[in-house]
Parts: sequence; C-alpha cells; structure tokens
Amino acid sequence: MSLVIVGSVAFDTIETPGERREKIVGGSCTYGAVAASYFTKPGIVAVVGEDFPKSTVAFLRKRGVDLKGLKIVKGGLTFHWHGRYGDDPNQRDTIRTDLNVFLDFRPEIPAAYKKAGILFLANIDPDLQEAIFLQVDKPRLTALDTIRLYIDTKPEALRRILKRVDVYFANDEEARLLTGQRNLILAAEAIREMGPRIVVVKKGEHGAMVFGPDLVLSVPALPCKWVVDPTGAGDSFAGGFLGWLDKAQSFSRREIRRAAVYGSVMASFTIEGFGLERYKTLRPADIAARYTAFKQLVRF
Amino acid sequence: MSLVIVGSVAFDTIETPGERREKIVGGSCTYGAVAASYFTKPGIVAVVGEDFPKSTVAFLRKRGVDLKGLKIVKGGLTFHWHGRYGDDPNQRDTIRTDLNVFLDFRPEIPAAYKKAGILFLANIDPDLQEAIFLQVDKPRLTALDTIRLYIDTKPEALRRILKRVDVYFANDEEARLLTGQRNLILAAEAIREMGPRIVVVKKGEHGAMVFGPDLVLSVPALPCKWVVDPTGAGDSFAGGFLGWLDKAQSFSRREIRRAAVYGSVMASFTIEGFGLERYKTLRPADIAARYTAFKQLVRF
Repeated sequence: MSLVIVGSVAFDTIETPGERREKIVGGSCTYGAVAASYFTKPGIVAVVGEDFPKSTVAFLRKRGVDLKGLKIVKGGLTFHWHGRYGDDPNQRDTIRTDLNVFLDFRPEIPAAYKKAGILFLANIDPDLQEAIFLQVDKPRLTALDTIRLYIDTKPEALRRILKRVDVYFANDEEARLLTGQRNLILAAEAIREMGPRIVVVKKGEHGAMVFGPDLVLSVPALPCKWVVDPTGAGDSFAGGFLGWLDKAQSFSRREIRRAAVYGSVMASFTIEGFGLERYKTLRPADIAARYTAFKQLVRF
Repeated sequence: MSLVIVGSVAFDTIETPGERREKIVGGSCTYGAVAASYFTKPGIVAVVGEDFPKSTVAFLRKRGVDLKGLKIVKGGLTFHWHGRYGDDPNQRDTIRTDLNVFLDFRPEIPAAYKKAGILFLANIDPDLQEAIFLQVDKPRLTALDTIRLYIDTKPEALRRILKRVDVYFANDEEARLLTGQRNLILAAEAIREMGPRIVVVKKGEHGAMVFGPDLVLSVPALPCKWVVDPTGAGDSFAGGFLGWLDKAQSFSRREIRRAAVYGSVMASFTIEGFGLERYKTLRPADIAARYTAFKQLVRF
C-alpha cells in the first residue's frame, strides 16, 4: 500500500451566494482520495451510513481508490455538514453538523494498509487522528490537515499530533490561529518548530506557500473568475500534493515543488463545480494542460 | 528624455505598531524615481517648500534623477502626510494631511521632458494628473497610479484619465472599489474595459498580478518576516516596473513580465526600512540577487 487517507466521507449541503445544493457527496477523505487518484491508487479509511449512494462507491472504485477501509454502517446515516459561503469564498459559516455514524467511529486500519508509505490524516476529530498512529508501521511520510474548530476546541491533541507529522496543511486563518502570528512567514516558522518539517499554507485566491528545510516556495492560484463551490479545495490540494509525492517516490525539494503545483492544480478543478462534479469529466490531459498553465502564470 | 514621473515629493510622519518617525522624506514621485533610478535616469515633476532637505535633493541627483521639473517654492512648506499602520501592514489610516505648497501646485513639464518616452502619473490629485496630457507629446507609454481617496472623491476625472493611459497600477482594495467587483480577475477585466491595456493589481504580502493582452502573470511577494514601513511600496513597484521597461525599450510580454518582477523586487527593498532608508546602501548587485531569489521562489 502506498498512500492511505483517513478522514471523512460525508454529505454536504452547500449554500453559495448564487445556489444551494442538498446533501451532495463531500468529505475530506473523498476530495483527498479523488484528487490523489490521478497520480496513485490511494486507500481510504472512513465511515458512511447505509444511505450513502452506491453510485459514489462505484465512482471511487472506478477511480482506482481502494475501499477496504471504508466502513458502511448498517441502518446508519452518513455524516452531514451544512455550510454557507458569503461573497468572499474564503469565508464560510457552518449552519449545522449531524455527526451520525461519525459519533461512534473508531477508524480501523485494514491489515493491507499497515505498511502505508504515505499516511494522510485528513480533517477529522484530532482524537481519532491520534489513535491512527498506534495502528500503522511508521510511514515514510505522515501529513495532517485540520480545521479551525479543532484548533479552538482540541489544541492539546493537535499539538501532540503535530509533533509526529512531517507535513502540515493549514490555511492562512488556521496558521495564524495556531500560532498567534499574523505574519504568515513567522506563523509557518512557529508551526515548523512544533514538529512538521514541511508546512503548506493555503491562501485561497492568493495561492499557497510551502516552507521546508532550505525551501520557500510560492505557488499561485489559477486566476478564477467564478468560484462555483470552494468546498474541498484544501482537501484536493492535499490529495494532489501527496498523490504526486507517492507517484514520484521521492520527497526531494524538486518533487515537493512539483507536488505543491499539482496540489494547486487539483484545487483549481475542485472549485469549478459543486462537490465532485468536475471530476466526472476530468481527464489526465486536463491536469497536464493546467500544470503548463501554472508554469505560464509565473514565467519570467 | 525617457521616463518622466509626475507626483508628490513630501514629508511623511509614520506610525507603525513598533515605531514612529517624524517628517521623513517620502512621496509617490520620490519612491517611484528612486526605484526607477536603478534602471534608467528618470526626470521628475513635483513641488516642495524651502524646508525640503538639501541632502535629499543631493541624494536624488546622485542617483541620477533629473530635477529640472522639481519646483522649490520660496518660503513654502513641503506637503506633509501623517499616517498610521495597524498590525496588518496593508491597512493604514490617515491622521493628518497638510497640503502646503501642493495647494497651488500646477505641474509644469519642462521643455526637455516634453518628448518623454514613458510618462508616469504617480499618485496626486486627478485634476492635476489630467492637466499633464496637454503638456506632453504623446509618450510611447503612459502609466497611472492613484489612491482610494480619489476613487471616492474624484471618480469622473479618474475615469477620463483611465481612458488615456496604457498601464494602471491598483492595489486590491482600489481595484475592487473602482469596479464594484470582489473577484480581482473580474475587477482587472472591468478596469481594462475602462482604457488601460495593462492592469497591475498589487496585493501586498500576496504579491501582484498583471493582466494584459494575452497575458496573465502572477508575481509573488518576497516572504518578509517583518515589514518595517510599508509606505512607498506601491510607488516603488511602479518605479521598478517602468524603470525596467524604459531600460528594455520594449513593451513585449516578456519585458512586461520582467518589469513586474523588478517592481516586486524594488517594493521588497522599500519595506525593509523607514522612508528611503534602505536605498542609502542598496547596490545594483542586491537587486540582481533578489531577482534570482524571486526566480527560486516560483521555480518548479
């Protein structure tokens, strides 16, 4: 097994200034796995209820996602998040969260995943994330994502996890909140002192920055006139980033730079449609073309 | 004459969260000219009072700035701006403005400047900017900068000027305000429809974007842990941008891309010190080294 992603597979109800979609498929693990599936064959660890659409399970399988770790709870209801975006797509309010099958979820890593080369702890409760470490042999690379909610409510658990991961994906708000530093360079430095060798700071329309040993990289976002649905952009970034590293089988600075661009590329596709919409038609050639567009965007 | 800059030469009193400086030399024309002086020999058109320090005049002359258009009003007092920055260096409040000699200033273009190849209307009252067009033969390139104050108070004059310029430098707030578009790509498109072929949107710590015919460019800002004084960053960007184009004597896409990076390079030096401090020791080799650092920052 190469890349293993532990996170949420969920229903999202999404309101944007222009539209509303009821209970479409989302979740950190879903977006991460679908984005990574263009580079490698990720395995997922997540839980859903019996109400989860079989068509999505089939879609994930078709994309080469290994579903041995996807638990389907009989009679259970899938986790459901309801969020609303304002005119600024970087800001969102949570209207409602129904944990449902997540209430009793204890992630179990299938035997086949224990030797994961790359482990991605996508956003779920830090207590669940922490329990994963006991179930896997030490992966070559461990990466973490979380959200503001857990920085606010479970800072100690997060600090313990940060000590054990190699890569941490934060957005600008999270990086500032976690460190009390407004300046993102200082914030990234402070986070690196907490544990992760590599810190990725995602800045929405302003792209992302990657900080690592002897490495500072600025990745633009693709200029986008209309963000249809920002949900999952960060998870897709992480999926593209880690999917590429898994394919490259190298964590050199050169591959980390490329991984960050593939991360930004995948995020740029995700926001073009609601939920996984854009991925229904996305071909590898589209990804290659957009990678070239990113090169053009920063060429001088 | 090649590059001519019309704008303000001023005293600034600056408060940052950490420090305060009384009546140091600033002004849009000053920053623009000093930045441009590393690439070409700009001429300036501005006014100061008799209180303006001779040492600064000598410094500008030493930097190769042509001062034929600098009017020194006998017995007059130099324009004085007092501003305060918050923790976010992109946000500032104007505490006080003493127009002084600017009250009666009517910019006069010296005969030697009438054939300017590039004309930069740096930030001053749009009514004064508009009067310049009558005094120059059509330059190969005309560029404009302004501030929020004039977008709010003199929108009609600004619209007339925008119709006549080739390049417009805006920060993100100004671009949004001028167009009512939150999305910067749409805002830049809307501004291009108002006249300028090339729109540069400066985003502070997030760098800048350049929009032109068949051209979209994303330029990072140099990662900076501590902004000493943000004053003049935008003017220095414009000075570096136009100074480079004047040196290149070409407005090709390739040179515009390089110009934008030199703009970001010069801005990155300006914010390292109060006022013109950093320029007292800045050597061409420092600029070359930083240009290389920018290449590293976006290489993938």
